[in-house]
Amino acid sequence: MTTVASALPVALVQLCATEDPGLNRRQAEAWLERAVLDAPAGVRPRLLMLPEVWNAPYAVDRFAAFAEPIPEPGADLTQGPSPSLAMVASLARRHGVAVIAGSIPEQGDAGRTYNTATLIDHRGVLLAKHRKVHLFDVDVPGGICFRESDSLTAGDSLTVLSGAGDPLGTDLLEPPNLGLLICYDIRFPELALLMQQRHGCTVLACPAAFNTTTGPRHWHLVMRARAIDTQCFVIACSSARPQGAGYPSYGHSLVVDPWGAVIAEAGEGEQVLHAQLDLSQVGLARQAIPTGLQRRRDLYQLREPEGPA
Amino acid sequence: MTTVASALPVALVQLCATEDPGLNRRQAEAWLERAVLDAPAGVRPRLLMLPEVWNAPYAVDRFAAFAEPIPEPGADLTQGPSPSLAMVASLARRHGVAVIAGSIPEQGDAGRTYNTATLIDHRGVLLAKHRKVHLFDVDVPGGICFRESDSLTAGDSLTVLSGAGDPLGTDLLEPPNLGLLICYDIRFPELALLMQQRHGCTVLACPAAFNTTTGPRHWHLVMRARAIDTQCFVIACSSARPQGAGYPSYGHSLVVDPWGAVIAEAGEGEQVLHAQLDLSQVGLARQAIPTGLQRRRDLYQLREPEGPA
Repeated sequence: MTTVASALPVALVQLCATEDPGLNRRQAEAWLERAVLDAPAGVRPRLLMLPEVWNAPYAVDRFAAFAEPIPEPGADLTQGPSPSLAMVASLARRHGVAVIAGSIPEQGDAGRTYNTATLIDHRGVLLAKHRKVHLFDVDVPGGICFRESDSLTAGDSLTVLSGAGDPLGTDLLEPPNLGLLICYDIRFPELALLMQQRHGCTVLACPAAFNTTTGPRHWHLVMRARAIDTQCFVIACSSARPQGAGYPSYGHSLVVDPWGAVIAEAGEGEQVLHAQLDLSQVGLARQAIPTGLQRRRDLYQLREPEGPA
Repeated sequence: MTTVASALPVALVQLCATEDPGLNRRQAEAWLERAVLDAPAGVRPRLLMLPEVWNAPYAVDRFAAFAEPIPEPGADLTQGPSPSLAMVASLARRHGVAVIAGSIPEQGDAGRTYNTATLIDHRGVLLAKHRKVHLFDVDVPGGICFRESDSLTAGDSLTVLSGAGDPLGTDLLEPPNLGLLICYDIRFPELALLMQQRHGCTVLACPAAFNTTTGPRHWHLVMRARAIDTQCFVIACSSARPQGAGYPSYGHSLVVDPWGAVIAEAGEGEQVLHAQLDLSQVGLARQAIPTGLQRRRDLYQLREPEGPA
């Protein structure tokens, strides 16, 4: 792996959670350390990523027990109140690396629990949080049946981070504008399209946990589809397949370029996936196949409703 | 291939056009006859389909010379004025089979030329026409450079056909609502999403001509993506790869089910592709993974602008 001037080195940590919250934190920390230190060819990642619900078993009856409070953006997470995110924030500060801290169950007001992704900068400060807006309620006969809405509340906003001022500490001339989605959110093209068309995103980050029913059918397809729909990089970090019982995560964490090509892919087990996002490819893809400029707003309009903040 | 009560047997004719308009008509007619008569296991197709620009070479400097006038829906096409569509309409009537007559260059007003798809019923009557709304203007370095807008005018409406009253003569209890798109149109998710969300489409038909640059990268991906985005069948009929010079069509005509699975696929050369669309799968897919009901209209709204007809 050689360094490209416009490239952002990333590392996706595909791991499994257990029923022991302390063990989950220690294992995740060990994997994140490995992701920083064992990068190939000496190219240290500038952005780490964890999967969906990496601090808890992925099960509707376990989310509340593992939920942690998450403050608003701007908070120094090394000081708490979330033990899981404090671990990540301390590691981020120690190594000077930003982290998309996958998602964890969040303790909200009035007993509500959210599935919440966070973006933590290289100093341990919370930059953005995204509460999953499309809950995973599906029932595929002979396959998976899951109802997140039995114990989770959906979020109510789209989440993007502008690259202006280089909040991630990438040292790139043109740091990425980053959109955050969680798993099932990626099936709704409108969300990713708005991230590109209205918010200028160049990277979409999707912590996820597809399963052995939906994974083989749709995992590569939807991640690659959103990449070419938006001509963004899509980085999708999955949880790993458990060795015994438990939610059968598909694994196969992916990095997809703006042409829709898979440039890195994990297997099913626990591992770190390294890749470099050559962000100059975003402009090249958009120049070659300029769908962003060719939209027919006289025939269809995609917008965010006006409303209270 | 066995018959299913809710199934619509279709046949996609993947063919190549030449510089001779009369030869193109005769060859297309022979392929359509073969598609009707040589269906496997005696299951005669109820819907035939031709590719994009099947009556002419696919080249910006040839469209005008091969353009033909196309009347408004309701016209008996066997009486002209388009020689190509009169051939198709006569065949449709002779065999009692509806035809998605791919697209042909259309002579419009004021010297304009459109890339226009038509849907012809089993009596030879024009049911719907779609003028390509997204012109294929791309420039992929080292790959394809093409500018339809050099000689074509874009259409200005979305085109769907309601199944109410069984206009296609399918004899199905629930005939499909059909959306018509042409090739590059399929890259714009908004169009297909509106066809599903606002017009109740269950089948999207896309005559197309991807090429050897965009085909390997995106052909299967976009067709399957639109199928799972909308949980519709997608039938995509491509022109065939020419044996000599000319536009390097990708071929690989596809039939994709509402789960995103390819249920039939052609090679690169001229051939007929038979498939049965088991339309009951649309309801099953939408019940299993109910994305159509889970949209967050408080976060994004996709609409057709109000405006003059």
